[in-house]
Amino acid sequence: MGIFDWSLGQFLKEAASSSPTPGGGSVAALTGALAASMAAMVANLTLGKEKFQEVAPDMERIRREAEETLEAMGKLMEADMEAFNTYMEALRLPKNTPEEKSFRQQKMQEALRRATEVPLEIAGRCFKVLELALEAARKGNEMAVSDAGVAGHLAWAALQAALLNVDINLPYFKDEELAAQFRAQRENLMEKGREVWERVVTAVQEKMIK
Amino acid sequence: MGIFDWSLGQFLKEAASSSPTPGGGSVAALTGALAASMAAMVANLTLGKEKFQEVAPDMERIRREAEETLEAMGKLMEADMEAFNTYMEALRLPKNTPEEKSFRQQKMQEALRRATEVPLEIAGRCFKVLELALEAARKGNEMAVSDAGVAGHLAWAALQAALLNVDINLPYFKDEELAAQFRAQRENLMEKGREVWERVVTAVQEKMIK
Repeated sequence: MGIFDWSLGQFLKEAASSSPTPGGGSVAALTGALAASMAAMVANLTLGKEKFQEVAPDMERIRREAEETLEAMGKLMEADMEAFNTYMEALRLPKNTPEEKSFRQQKMQEALRRATEVPLEIAGRCFKVLELALEAARKGNEMAVSDAGVAGHLAWAALQAALLNVDINLPYFKDEELAAQFRAQRENLMEKGREVWERVVTAVQEKMIK
Repeated sequence: MGIFDWSLGQFLKEAASSSPTPGGGSVAALTGALAASMAAMVANLTLGKEKFQEVAPDMERIRREAEETLEAMGKLMEADMEAFNTYMEALRLPKNTPEEKSFRQQKMQEALRRATEVPLEIAGRCFKVLELALEAARKGNEMAVSDAGVAGHLAWAALQAALLNVDINLPYFKDEELAAQFRAQRENLMEKGREVWERVVTAVQEKMIK
């Protein structure tokens, strides 16, 4: 059973509980998926209308890319939970001898790397959704422009939420070069994300009927 | 069957489709519920730990209020879909005679009012979640501070997303006094929301291990 088979109630209950998964990373990915669903909806509410015939190829692409992103977010939710569980397993390894200590340390560092790569990928996918939201706001049916705005707000929040799950890991990296690489990716996504989000807000405001 | 019985996949698929519900308002409410689940998780990860005994009553309250908010969001998701459907029904009423036109107009205005009150209530609940996120970030277990941050980002995005669903309705109000009232509520929530969100971001940054 995949994560998308869970009921909303079950997911919310597990997220609220003290069990560590699903945690912030998975919740960020689900929010990114909700944002993608809104971008797809704008495309669907634009397609098939004569008035918007010219942008039909763009809308077909937005819909396809939004649906792909939505599916990818499901996989990333599962990957985030798995990464966390792997880290917890490493944490529980024995540490009685120097060899055991060293092996445990290595496993923890590997798990930490994975637990950082996954939210970075979630944030990258959220950036993609921001771009789709911007295009949907600019070219899509103005009757659905608020939904493009919802996609933008949610994708930007999910991007920032995912990056918090990068931030909490970085201080624990032994490999400082790797940490610096991840930090640079983080900064880049944050900066680009803010830019596109601001453009979405402007595009939505300009297009909304006053 | 309530909305929380839907699977994640089913909800995302329906949201992405051209069927008008669930739309932006319901998606905003679900995001608010996800934010509430994260505030509850921070409380759950703080309770029962000796180090945090002093804040246990606060954490009990945060958990209870977050869970109440989460349940309320489910009801608001359903109310949002119902309000939209009522508006669509009014839109389809006959308009052949002056009497029919006047009756249709009245029904549309009533539906519009409901379709504006519901997202305003969603935004108000999101503001509550922002306050819970702030308290969780400040007083909760620092190991879960990123989750308090996730709660803050998601609640702020959901608040703004809900208010977009107010904005799209306001130009269609015949009763300008009522529109002005709703606009004032909207401005107030936006302003207060931004303030608390900024405090959450600061609290999370200060508490996160560097």
